[in-house]
Amino acid sequence: MNKPYYAVIFTSLQTDNVTGYGDMAARMEKLAQQQPGYMGMEHARSGMGITISYWRDLQGIKAWKQHTEHAMAQQLGKEQWYRYYKVRICLVEREYEFGQI
Amino acid sequence: MNKPYYAVIFTSLQTDNVTGYGDMAARMEKLAQQQPGYMGMEHARSGMGITISYWRDLQGIKAWKQHTEHAMAQQLGKEQWYRYYKVRICLVEREYEFGQI
Repeated sequence: MNKPYYAVIFTSLQTDNVTGYGDMAARMEKLAQQQPGYMGMEHARSGMGITISYWRDLQGIKAWKQHTEHAMAQQLGKEQWYRYYKVRICLVEREYEFGQI
Repeated sequence: MNKPYYAVIFTSLQTDNVTGYGDMAARMEKLAQQQPGYMGMEHARSGMGITISYWRDLQGIKAWKQHTEHAMAQQLGKEQWYRYYKVRICLVEREYEFGQI
């Protein structure tokens, strides 16, 4: 990815009530892909969930946070799905890779 | 965590031969914890693996990368366990959280 760009690290612990979570997560990923400045998303969960989304600039991150449908999803997340989460907004300074995807 | 600090995002895809990987990962986490500037580590895997380690400064990240035992583990990783990985070194600019761990 061409620098500079940003990584938003979202780490989370779920509650016992994850009804509807999978559908919402899929919907949000699809919606995020349509936002200005969106560059990609990676996700893994084993106990803790980690989702990293990549963005061209801070404006794109802010606009996505405030997107109406995403804001509703965040509200549901706080009420129902997450008992804890942390968001870190990070500037990617350096990167390198090995092998083939 | 007090800013400024760094996040090292390590995303990976494994080969079919993960013999010895679990023991090495546990050993490396223990060893990382003893390094200057180390602040924490988070991990999840579901298909893709994501490991994020947090560091006080770039010197700590560089020293850990070059640590003899870690360098040997990286070499084994390239020869055996990983078919792909990507490392991103990121400055954490902002963070917020919700709920309790």
